[in-house]
Amino acid sequence: MSENIFFKRNGPYLLSQLFKDLAIYKEAKVLDINTLINASKNDLSFYDSLNYKENASKTKAIACLTTENLKNDLPKDCIPIVVKNVLFELCNILKKFYPSADNDIADPSLILAKNSRHKRVKFGNNVLIGSHANIGEGTNIGPNTIIEQSVSIGKNCIIGSNVKIKNTLIGDSVIIQDGCNIGLKGFGFIPLNNKNLKFPHIGKVIIEDNVEIASNCTIDRGSIDDTVIGKNTYLDNQVHVAHNVKIGKNCMIAGQVGIAGSTILGDNVSIGGQAGISGHLKIGNNVRIGGGSGVVKDVPDNSVIMGYPAVSLKEFIKNQRND
Amino acid sequence: MSENIFFKRNGPYLLSQLFKDLAIYKEAKVLDINTLINASKNDLSFYDSLNYKENASKTKAIACLTTENLKNDLPKDCIPIVVKNVLFELCNILKKFYPSADNDIADPSLILAKNSRHKRVKFGNNVLIGSHANIGEGTNIGPNTIIEQSVSIGKNCIIGSNVKIKNTLIGDSVIIQDGCNIGLKGFGFIPLNNKNLKFPHIGKVIIEDNVEIASNCTIDRGSIDDTVIGKNTYLDNQVHVAHNVKIGKNCMIAGQVGIAGSTILGDNVSIGGQAGISGHLKIGNNVRIGGGSGVVKDVPDNSVIMGYPAVSLKEFIKNQRND
Amino acid sequence: MSENIFFKRNGPYLLSQLFKDLAIYKEAKVLDINTLINASKNDLSFYDSLNYKENASKTKAIACLTTENLKNDLPKDCIPIVVKNVLFELCNILKKFYPSADNDIADPSLILAKNSRHKRVKFGNNVLIGSHANIGEGTNIGPNTIIEQSVSIGKNCIIGSNVKIKNTLIGDSVIIQDGCNIGLKGFGFIPLNNKNLKFPHIGKVIIEDNVEIASNCTIDRGSIDDTVIGKNTYLDNQVHVAHNVKIGKNCMIAGQVGIAGSTILGDNVSIGGQAGISGHLKIGNNVRIGGGSGVVKDVPDNSVIMGYPAVSLKEFIKNQRND
Repeated sequence: MSENIFFKRNGPYLLSQLFKDLAIYKEAKVLDINTLINASKNDLSFYDSLNYKENASKTKAIACLTTENLKNDLPKDCIPIVVKNVLFELCNILKKFYPSADNDIADPSLILAKNSRHKRVKFGNNVLIGSHANIGEGTNIGPNTIIEQSVSIGKNCIIGSNVKIKNTLIGDSVIIQDGCNIGLKGFGFIPLNNKNLKFPHIGKVIIEDNVEIASNCTIDRGSIDDTVIGKNTYLDNQVHVAHNVKIGKNCMIAGQVGIAGSTILGDNVSIGGQAGISGHLKIGNNVRIGGGSGVVKDVPDNSVIMGYPAVSLKEFIKNQRND
Repeated sequence: MSENIFFKRNGPYLLSQLFKDLAIYKEAKVLDINTLINASKNDLSFYDSLNYKENASKTKAIACLTTENLKNDLPKDCIPIVVKNVLFELCNILKKFYPSADNDIADPSLILAKNSRHKRVKFGNNVLIGSHANIGEGTNIGPNTIIEQSVSIGKNCIIGSNVKIKNTLIGDSVIIQDGCNIGLKGFGFIPLNNKNLKFPHIGKVIIEDNVEIASNCTIDRGSIDDTVIGKNTYLDNQVHVAHNVKIGKNCMIAGQVGIAGSTILGDNVSIGGQAGISGHLKIGNNVRIGGGSGVVKDVPDNSVIMGYPAVSLKEFIKNQRND
Repeated sequence: MSENIFFKRNGPYLLSQLFKDLAIYKEAKVLDINTLINASKNDLSFYDSLNYKENASKTKAIACLTTENLKNDLPKDCIPIVVKNVLFELCNILKKFYPSADNDIADPSLILAKNSRHKRVKFGNNVLIGSHANIGEGTNIGPNTIIEQSVSIGKNCIIGSNVKIKNTLIGDSVIIQDGCNIGLKGFGFIPLNNKNLKFPHIGKVIIEDNVEIASNCTIDRGSIDDTVIGKNTYLDNQVHVAHNVKIGKNCMIAGQVGIAGSTILGDNVSIGGQAGISGHLKIGNNVRIGGGSGVVKDVPDNSVIMGYPAVSLKEFIKNQRND
């Protein structure tokens, strides 16, 4: 995740302030929390699944929340903080650093859009803009749309009406149609009886140039990482993109598709209507996924898959004949 | 269904006014219409499916619309009103009692929110509030949101922008994200050529404490019963909850799930993304339903199911191998 | 497609201006672009799939974009314009005739609704209406709703809040609930690396009398043809209807159904929740489609189908037993 302009961050904290048992590391200072790959030497990271073993071995984090059986995958200069429930501890640390990222209260800095602040931008009626939002020349924003603080929108974009955008960076010539909600927190929490622990979402959404997002889509911001929609990718109506998803360039995603959290799609991927893709998967380049499919495992480059659960098109057709 | 504060009710009517053939019951007075279980001694009820035989045997209703072959399941002191099409007759009686519940005209009492009426509530721009709406301290309501007459919202809730709420009672610390429509009438009507008969929806939505509902969800109010979301249950984006559905406590419902009318879910149920649950089913406690599943029959407590149609996870995996 | 009131059209052009190689047809004038069936003698049409062979043989178009192997299906008095990629060439011609139909910029003529212009219409707060929009007596329009230029809405309709309607003609007694987006451009483009070619959508949406559309639905306008919802058809929440789809009369379409582009449904069709129907299909009259089904081929009248891919109910049940 790149620099965080959307949330106020507390700290720095000493490791010994965060974890009392680690008083031996008196000098170690933690500035921020980040993923294994993106962590720099003053960051705390987290590692709780063998899926990320390679990333763990390369992390530059000063310390890392992990479990007893995974701790040896970390580099020697990364201090392992062994806990029973990595996400639970991570959630608590995040709340300490980012106390306002676990809920989406409407931006109090919103005011009616004015051309004196945003030159050569066309605003419909009742558009609200937050402080430090940046909107490029030639962009057109429809009525009742809300652009919260620090959001950046490029040149020549068309944003529809009744749209909400927060914690998002948008390139040039992007289309976002009516009723979309972009950059809200994702579906992440630690389940507890009576009152779940809400997981702070300190990530953002990045939408690259020439992307088109049709109406009533929802694209959640990342939890710790970012959610990314690559250049020239098109989404049809009512698509749901969960937190931390990364979609490559030139993808075509038909109506009502859902992509669960942390899944990564390559370039030139096409997905038929109503297909669903499970979380934490890696879908290769040039993959074609049939409408209505349910994808539950990684998919190599150039595959054509279909079915629930999705298999190669060849296998899908063979199975149909056997029935 | 508890007391009806949302709709103006006509009546009382004598049974003989409602049904001419029942002139023998000259004294019987009907105050309201209710489900078999919730009916009190001045209510008319309805019974048209063996699924509800047990409820029928216990009803306290003074009279009950039913069919020839079901009428004997009713208690002796409940007057059976035998008709060919229970729902058709019920629909007509409902229209007599509640002439304005079959269409959702915008509340004419809506005015711009003012802090003089709702103390310690934070309102965004252009929030509209209906008469007798009640909003608790510490609650934050985003721009362009509409809270219709008599809606009650508890303390410390966060309601997003472009939200519509009507006929709904909401507890404390509830989150409702942007673009949700809560409490609109459900998909209920008697099919007729050229002009269907719209079924009045006199129920409401009840959302208990600590519930979280993500963006662009739709939760319809009950037809005669209520729609209920239990304490600490979380819904992800674009979930559809139909009329009369009851969801227990501590449930987790992932994105784009749909739950059809009158289905009842127990506590601690988790549902994967894009799963669909048919109407009039009973899903037990601690049930786990895989993403993309289609549930078409009742599910006992503690089951783990998957597939279309959904079967036990064990059976699902076995079937995959057989293919 | 009937007369186009929503888009400014350039032209007429001589065929020789549009296609340099066709200079031999110096006199042939093209007024508009239309489908094979709807084209009149001054229109250019297009033919690129054997599915439309019968329509091709009957077209009255003066000229038709087509391929080498299909050109002989056209009538003798229709000038074949043989190209490699029909849709690519069509897209470019459409942009020439209709330069503003490939993007949905908010209607600049929108102003706050006034009863001086629209008599006996009830408007909520902050309703915006475009020039030449026509709204019938007794119609009620909820807050924050946007009705763009030239839209026509009949008598006694109820339009919810946060609704967007453009390029649409609506009959009498129609209900459109909150959060719907009607008449936006569909998901049509020519895929190109870095910058897709956006396909102009010059069609409209036609919604006939007594139709009901529940909340958060999206109904895209036609590309060259129209999108049509027949009389007394009801759509539940979160339904997606793609461009050029035609739905007959008295249909019932449950929640979260998706219908892909150019598919035609007969009358009295019922579709269960979350079902998906592929594009360019023909679904007969009185067809019943089970919830969650994926329909991938044409369906004859009176069929009852289910499954993914959908088969007859009999076959579906048999397959379940074999598992």
